[in-house]
Amino acid sequence: MTSKPPIGRDTRLCMSLAARPGNFGSRFHNRLYELTGLDYVYKAFTTTDLAGAIGGIRALGVRGCAISMPFKEDVIALLDGLAPSAAAIDSVNTIVNDDGVLTGHNTDYAAVAALIAEVDPATRFVLRGSGGMAKAVAAALRDAGFRDGVIVARNEAKGRPLAELYGFGWQSDLGDEGAPLLVNVTPLGMAGGDADAMAFQAAMVAACEVAFDVVAIPAETPFLKAAGAAGKRRITGAAVATLQALEQFVLYTGVRPGDAQVAEAEAFARG
Amino acid sequence: MTSKPPIGRDTRLCMSLAARPGNFGSRFHNRLYELTGLDYVYKAFTTTDLAGAIGGIRALGVRGCAISMPFKEDVIALLDGLAPSAAAIDSVNTIVNDDGVLTGHNTDYAAVAALIAEVDPATRFVLRGSGGMAKAVAAALRDAGFRDGVIVARNEAKGRPLAELYGFGWQSDLGDEGAPLLVNVTPLGMAGGDADAMAFQAAMVAACEVAFDVVAIPAETPFLKAAGAAGKRRITGAAVATLQALEQFVLYTGVRPGDAQVAEAEAFARG
Repeated sequence: MTSKPPIGRDTRLCMSLAARPGNFGSRFHNRLYELTGLDYVYKAFTTTDLAGAIGGIRALGVRGCAISMPFKEDVIALLDGLAPSAAAIDSVNTIVNDDGVLTGHNTDYAAVAALIAEVDPATRFVLRGSGGMAKAVAAALRDAGFRDGVIVARNEAKGRPLAELYGFGWQSDLGDEGAPLLVNVTPLGMAGGDADAMAFQAAMVAACEVAFDVVAIPAETPFLKAAGAAGKRRITGAAVATLQALEQFVLYTGVRPGDAQVAEAEAFARG
Repeated sequence: MTSKPPIGRDTRLCMSLAARPGNFGSRFHNRLYELTGLDYVYKAFTTTDLAGAIGGIRALGVRGCAISMPFKEDVIALLDGLAPSAAAIDSVNTIVNDDGVLTGHNTDYAAVAALIAEVDPATRFVLRGSGGMAKAVAAALRDAGFRDGVIVARNEAKGRPLAELYGFGWQSDLGDEGAPLLVNVTPLGMAGGDADAMAFQAAMVAACEVAFDVVAIPAETPFLKAAGAAGKRRITGAAVATLQALEQFVLYTGVRPGDAQVAEAEAFARG
């Protein structure tokens, strides 16, 4: 482990903005700063004033900021430009501040694309959700060759255009019909109010082949637990969270940590 | 030493804003957080957009912020109210954020008052400077009973009203006449562009009784070095910096550290 200097005027701040902030990002990034000796510090924030928060990032020279629900789309109007990863899905989960020029990126897209690369794109899927992360997942599925799928979202104004944009079906309610690939991109099962909610009925889980949940905290949602108990293949929100956080780290610092460093930071962040 | 949790969503951020930020505050406060086990983190910032920075403090729920030159007066219009210490001198060096209500304080005033308490108020003084810190020192001198003094400031628009407010004389140039108490409240001798500048002529230092410099970095300015070499009694900017930072710590956390903890944090911050 190299020596990290004490926090001071030259230390670069990276941060996150979320309605319900977790501790994964703070622990993951700060541990990697220790392991790499980089003079950075990371802290999670919440806000009820997104414009004020982004103004603060500019005024204080904050180096980077992770953007979580419900800000991933609203934040776009407050930035100076979008990288291709964010422009492709009109959703930002990462801001990089280069001397006052704020560029939006989307590291969720890259992480999801990497994780679904080993699922046969002929697999039919049902995806629940219509927010910024749902866009990233739908786009990654489409770009990976998936053509047979349905977006389930009660909010027709968001769900239907999202489905049509990527050539998938849309329905407002889950109904009774599942699919070999089940994808949850809602807060169902997330620590907090919806922690006990199961994103798909037990019968659907029992009949599926692959269970993919983007909820990262807790790592074991009711949906993933049921899938694990039934011996199904799983793609976890925890894996998405680590991969996308790693890409953020690289964008902010220009340094790509080694696999052992990433594994240690991930274990610490989940500990 | 108690155990401080890793930085996360519940960690409270305290910070500073200055045109030329130093590292004293970050090191002093962060060390005291470690020694007291409080879940806080402190970082120095600079900005060219004071309103944006204060907006960020509100939007992000930053708990407290030290205000240094040149923002001590301009910041007042951006706050919700002033504590008596700041209202008395229309100068803010500390913001406390209570759930979105920003109150300006001035811990410099209290620190200076404590340090000059042992100088005979019948002593005549010459004070150089006319900024926010000069107001704090002049007010503390007046309130301690000093009546025979002159404010030296090239900026007549600031220096003359400051002197008249507290019943002292004003002159634009230092001239040749010193006083038993010499007080520097300018950046002369501060690390950076003016590091080699001596706030008072050598002859004045040789003729004085007490040398008081508010410049804290470096602890040994040319003025204080000369006074020390001549065996004069000294009041150092380092002492002011530690006392005022301690009062900030108490305002932000509600916790008053013990003397040994303060001494350790001060030594670390200067190290």
